[in-house]
Amino acid sequence: MKTRGYAVQTPKSPLEPYDFERRELRFNDVAIEILYCGVCHSDLHQARNDWGWSNYPLVPGHEIVGRVIDVAPQAKRYKVGDHVAVGCMVDSCMTCDQCRKGLEQLCREGNTQTYCGFDRVTNEPTKGGYSKHVVVREDFVLRVPDSLDLSRVAPLLCAGITTYSPLRTWTVGPGSRVGVIGLGGLGHMAVKLASALGATVTVVSRTPDKAADARKLGADALLLSTDNEAMEKAASSFDLIIDTIPVRHDLNPYLPLLDVDGTIVLVGQVGPLAEPTTVPLIVGRRRIAGSPIGGIPETQEMLDFCGRKNILPDCEMIRMDQINEAWERMKRADVRYRFVIDMASLKVPA
Amino acid sequence: MKTRGYAVQTPKSPLEPYDFERRELRFNDVAIEILYCGVCHSDLHQARNDWGWSNYPLVPGHEIVGRVIDVAPQAKRYKVGDHVAVGCMVDSCMTCDQCRKGLEQLCREGNTQTYCGFDRVTNEPTKGGYSKHVVVREDFVLRVPDSLDLSRVAPLLCAGITTYSPLRTWTVGPGSRVGVIGLGGLGHMAVKLASALGATVTVVSRTPDKAADARKLGADALLLSTDNEAMEKAASSFDLIIDTIPVRHDLNPYLPLLDVDGTIVLVGQVGPLAEPTTVPLIVGRRRIAGSPIGGIPETQEMLDFCGRKNILPDCEMIRMDQINEAWERMKRADVRYRFVIDMASLKVPA
Repeated sequence: MKTRGYAVQTPKSPLEPYDFERRELRFNDVAIEILYCGVCHSDLHQARNDWGWSNYPLVPGHEIVGRVIDVAPQAKRYKVGDHVAVGCMVDSCMTCDQCRKGLEQLCREGNTQTYCGFDRVTNEPTKGGYSKHVVVREDFVLRVPDSLDLSRVAPLLCAGITTYSPLRTWTVGPGSRVGVIGLGGLGHMAVKLASALGATVTVVSRTPDKAADARKLGADALLLSTDNEAMEKAASSFDLIIDTIPVRHDLNPYLPLLDVDGTIVLVGQVGPLAEPTTVPLIVGRRRIAGSPIGGIPETQEMLDFCGRKNILPDCEMIRMDQINEAWERMKRADVRYRFVIDMASLKVPA
Repeated sequence: MKTRGYAVQTPKSPLEPYDFERRELRFNDVAIEILYCGVCHSDLHQARNDWGWSNYPLVPGHEIVGRVIDVAPQAKRYKVGDHVAVGCMVDSCMTCDQCRKGLEQLCREGNTQTYCGFDRVTNEPTKGGYSKHVVVREDFVLRVPDSLDLSRVAPLLCAGITTYSPLRTWTVGPGSRVGVIGLGGLGHMAVKLASALGATVTVVSRTPDKAADARKLGADALLLSTDNEAMEKAASSFDLIIDTIPVRHDLNPYLPLLDVDGTIVLVGQVGPLAEPTTVPLIVGRRRIAGSPIGGIPETQEMLDFCGRKNILPDCEMIRMDQINEAWERMKRADVRYRFVIDMASLKVPA
């Protein structure tokens, strides 16, 4: 199938229109007309080859929401017209212990990323959601609850599940004391989701100007990390801290905030951390962990949870041709809290 | 009570004989004639004020085994003649949530360390087990199982409990895959204890010359950390790694060894770690934790477990006047695996 997207041709290029083919339907594939695609900070990292595994031309986008327009004969779950979503992965081995547990994100062979991955059958590079269409095997397609405003669902597929998954892994619920560091795309979802799960939520921020926003998102408090007295008073007062900072940073100021057996979960920075000291870890039996996205069953659970509770990200809608400017603004954290591309703004030439 | 010990007078002094007073019995105190005291690497760190909180004259020693020689009227648990032990702490608030859970090592007010601490009643500096006598409230005195060779019990009080506690916290048992990094005082106990708990135990070492020793201690295998192929093959194969390295080091080679949700527990190095990368943490949902000693109930449980299984450290017995040389050898890791001071070698002048 002919389609059009926006691609970067090299690590230094801007995003530009790019015509390419999506594969013909095979096995249990579903063809999706993309209606909305969220703009994730990792799109920019990957476009610039910050992690070293990019391939070009690179069509970013892994927060995909659309409408089923065709299904392969063996596809049983979806029918034409269904509202569906695709997240950060489009395939996995489906046979290892992790996949059998529904933890495809932790597939022993590595999952197939929605873009910058390689198709498991043809070995062709995968291309993401900054495009009009995508073809995905139905096992990696999610159902969007009818109750949700379709135009705001997309960021749930990465920002949502990346924060929901650790909240569930570390069994957050009523009585849990959750901290959130960084109030961007991931951070604002962490606040909404932890709050909806019944936790007491505190945003930890370097600047007091986030206080009103934090409360609007559902946080119970803002802790100013530059206020030494407040930080000391907050020692040992969190069970879980979701750290969404997407750059190299120093964990040492945050570790003492954890209570005994508490965990700080890194979901933002992929790369080096500043040198940590073991003292708060050892003396207070504290923990540092990382967490990727979630598996397909957990992602569907998250979407259904958001459907029941009407949880949606705060989005700013853009046209496809505004994407380069949006990336510039995202670099400056000048977005509250997630850009979403309205894919109706992109036409495929006849 | 008059007693004699060995103290350092300054961070640069050698250990020398030192006469001092132990407090008169109060409340539920127990007076103990020290028969054996283990030599822990942290004795040296503290003597040299490496952690910045030392006070002088400093009498080290927190692996204490002895015989009760007197009890205060309110002391109910021990009687004169009992074989008892004292570990790294001699008091705590006994009222906070952690103390009430038997986690006195994590007391909200901080526990009182056996040496370099401050008595909670008089605020006098505490002095450790490189001495003939000690007076401790009975709540922090452990019972030594009769079945154990008394001369080898002392290192259980720090090296033993420091490795037993994380094995229990992370519920190691039959089927658990445990790695041990560093085969010194702590590491050799980690191997013995994890093995006795039913785990499959692998020593991770930079040199192959530890292989025979590792097996003798109960390990199932030795993984050579300098063998890249072996390290890659061992990726994702451990549930828990006990890292006993007592100096600044790089975790990055070890993190990929952990399976999903696996944890590397730091029990050796108190201070900075080399800059870690978050990639194996995030991609594999792996964890880094610290763990201090254990609480009093868990320490008694560990002693009883060792009593039932006849687990004892490998010790080299020294006289008190050999301690400076023993410290030099400990610095070079020239001991298999723990020095124990035979306190009969030290006489108190009349």
